[in-house]
Amino acid sequence: MTPRGRRPAGSPDARDAILTAARAAFAREGFSTSLRGIARQAGVDPALVHHYFPDRARLFAQAVIVDAEGAGLDVEAVVERLASLRAEDLGEGVVRLFLTTWQTMGADRFTAMVRAAMTDDLARTSLQSYISSELLEPVIARHAADRPVLRAQLIASQMLGLGVARWVTEVSEIAAADVEDLVAIYGPTIQRYATEDLPGA
Amino acid sequence: MTPRGRRPAGSPDARDAILTAARAAFAREGFSTSLRGIARQAGVDPALVHHYFPDRARLFAQAVIVDAEGAGLDVEAVVERLASLRAEDLGEGVVRLFLTTWQTMGADRFTAMVRAAMTDDLARTSLQSYISSELLEPVIARHAADRPVLRAQLIASQMLGLGVARWVTEVSEIAAADVEDLVAIYGPTIQRYATEDLPGA
Repeated sequence: MTPRGRRPAGSPDARDAILTAARAAFAREGFSTSLRGIARQAGVDPALVHHYFPDRARLFAQAVIVDAEGAGLDVEAVVERLASLRAEDLGEGVVRLFLTTWQTMGADRFTAMVRAAMTDDLARTSLQSYISSELLEPVIARHAADRPVLRAQLIASQMLGLGVARWVTEVSEIAAADVEDLVAIYGPTIQRYATEDLPGA
Repeated sequence: MTPRGRRPAGSPDARDAILTAARAAFAREGFSTSLRGIARQAGVDPALVHHYFPDRARLFAQAVIVDAEGAGLDVEAVVERLASLRAEDLGEGVVRLFLTTWQTMGADRFTAMVRAAMTDDLARTSLQSYISSELLEPVIARHAADRPVLRAQLIASQMLGLGVARWVTEVSEIAAADVEDLVAIYGPTIQRYATEDLPGA
């Protein structure tokens, strides 16, 4: 017997219910939100949260970053999509992908993600690992550019700043701009960071 | 008579003592730190804090942003320095100025500033007003580039992202790089945002 109102561990919905509850809780209360509270909202036993997500960072990464829409987003599919672009379209492709993903994510959830990354080491590590190591570095390496780690970090530094300007601090012109105008403005920056010769050591 | 251990209101040191205490308190406790606590640390009457700095945002802007070194830094002097550069040196000049100023400010104080700007509307308004309206827009206008507000916001979006990467999240390659390597890498980005033709509306 499971407790009244709780989903049994074998339920195919349990993992999804945990992710949905986690997304809401992280957005509302930040990275330090209670995992027991998430279990309660999801209607599952707290042990089941731990079963699917061994630590808070992995739950955060999956709920907030990887699968922002709850649509089963998969990092390999995103890498594949970017890697299949022609090298010279990579800059615009990266800007468009980030902007449309974060737009769907919404300002509140994006803000929660950024605040968590800036105040908590585990959240920061999750976000960095996802954006730089799992997503951008493989794409850059597929385009045979040198120094993929530096390039991924340069790209992330501009995309994060753009995201903050558009959704967290909401500065007027960047918040109001069309996605395609931002793609045209920021695309050449990201293109240079991704594939062109870089000065320095 | 002033209370024992307190500086009299007329003391030339009182304002400096408030700024020094405020810098430490904002760095330690964030934007919402107690103004009474700052007055206590500075050894002044709380009314004197209010006398010099009518609201929290102005105290924050002066203590943390404008005068990070307590060296009487003056925004007009910074604008003058940047405006006196040749137009084609503006990108590198802006990157070098921000990086050296923030380096002096230190990672803790920079982090406190960014966190405050992301969690508090008044701190955000102070920071934006200082970086965009008072500093970058006049410099861009002096170089006769169009759309100074958009250009200032584009520059701020990259410089903020770079600062976060170097001092808040401390991503490996950007945190370890020499200032002049970063100037060479980011200079052309800022140059384009500041003076070159931009696509879009």
